[in-house]
Amino acid sequence: MGTDDRAAGRPRSREADVAILDAALDLFIERGAEATSVEQVARRAGVTRATVYRRYPDKIRLLVATIEAAYAEPLPTPEIDDVEHMLTGWVTVLSDPRQRRLLRRLYGAIEDYPELVHAYQRLFGQQRAQVRRSVLERARDRGQFPADTVPDVVLNLIIGAGWQHLAIHADSCTAAEAEKFLRAVLHQLGYRPDGHHHQPFEPPVKQ
Amino acid sequence: MGTDDRAAGRPRSREADVAILDAALDLFIERGAEATSVEQVARRAGVTRATVYRRYPDKIRLLVATIEAAYAEPLPTPEIDDVEHMLTGWVTVLSDPRQRRLLRRLYGAIEDYPELVHAYQRLFGQQRAQVRRSVLERARDRGQFPADTVPDVVLNLIIGAGWQHLAIHADSCTAAEAEKFLRAVLHQLGYRPDGHHHQPFEPPVKQ
Repeated sequence: MGTDDRAAGRPRSREADVAILDAALDLFIERGAEATSVEQVARRAGVTRATVYRRYPDKIRLLVATIEAAYAEPLPTPEIDDVEHMLTGWVTVLSDPRQRRLLRRLYGAIEDYPELVHAYQRLFGQQRAQVRRSVLERARDRGQFPADTVPDVVLNLIIGAGWQHLAIHADSCTAAEAEKFLRAVLHQLGYRPDGHHHQPFEPPVKQ
Repeated sequence: MGTDDRAAGRPRSREADVAILDAALDLFIERGAEATSVEQVARRAGVTRATVYRRYPDKIRLLVATIEAAYAEPLPTPEIDDVEHMLTGWVTVLSDPRQRRLLRRLYGAIEDYPELVHAYQRLFGQQRAQVRRSVLERARDRGQFPADTVPDVVLNLIIGAGWQHLAIHADSCTAAEAEKFLRAVLHQLGYRPDGHHHQPFEPPVKQ
């Protein structure tokens, strides 16, 4: 990603910002938080260590900024309007090798670098969790899930199934394979796209 | 764990075996695979590095032996005879801070130390998976799960819910809290201890 250009001369300030965050994200994915150092990030970004330290006082704050930048794109939340849409999003993540490695690195950082996980949850998890909860409530009310379904329990189960998929399946997993896995998961959770769970004995609607 | 005694003199061979594996497990839980070194293990075990290297040619083989030792106790598999028994086992793990940290470290090692995870799966995962699969099949056949339940999907969902619990709940989680979480999970998966899913129109049994 342009490392050669950068190495040829000292990047200007804005360019250095981007180069540092790109290099830090690459290294975090390749090596994890523990094995990544400010020195390596500076070298890969083609800047001096001082250039990095002027922006971030330590590795943790550098990595937090890296995760924030990685998940800062405007969220297409209004588009997540039903379970099929959510499914498409999860399939995209589970069939993208780089996303898979990034998420495993985030899980691996829980123990020693909780700040990274908090940054991720703040930007991505919590914001989306509210949207997803509403989607699941509507799906339940339409009879796509059993009437006693608890949206937060379903969300934890789907996210957990994602962790398990990241742990046991190869990163070469295709979108079709990821979708098959997730459809089996949703089926076991009671999801029926055809609204199967609608109460058969609803009070008759006034004509 | 007896570190003072060990430091006082060179432990004998058998004692050194145990001291090395104990120290390696402690360090793996405290720091993870990446940040653990043979030198640290030797120091904490009160032995020389040469004593460690005589047994294990490198850190990876030392850590694999450590995981094998941690999960090598004879498994009480015949006791896992129904879902309630399995639940008890999972509650024990999820409410034990040391087990929680060990499992998170194992997940964190997937990327760079897959050998550790394979050792764990070989000793613990696969062996138990077969037993658990049979338990789930019997439970389904008794009407405790919906008739179209796929045991492997349920297992992935429960293990995944475990990863998620380890990620989002404090290690001070009590057994009662872990049980509440897992019962909600099992309920969403369709588990009904009372055999609720039994087909109401079975062919009459000859009298």
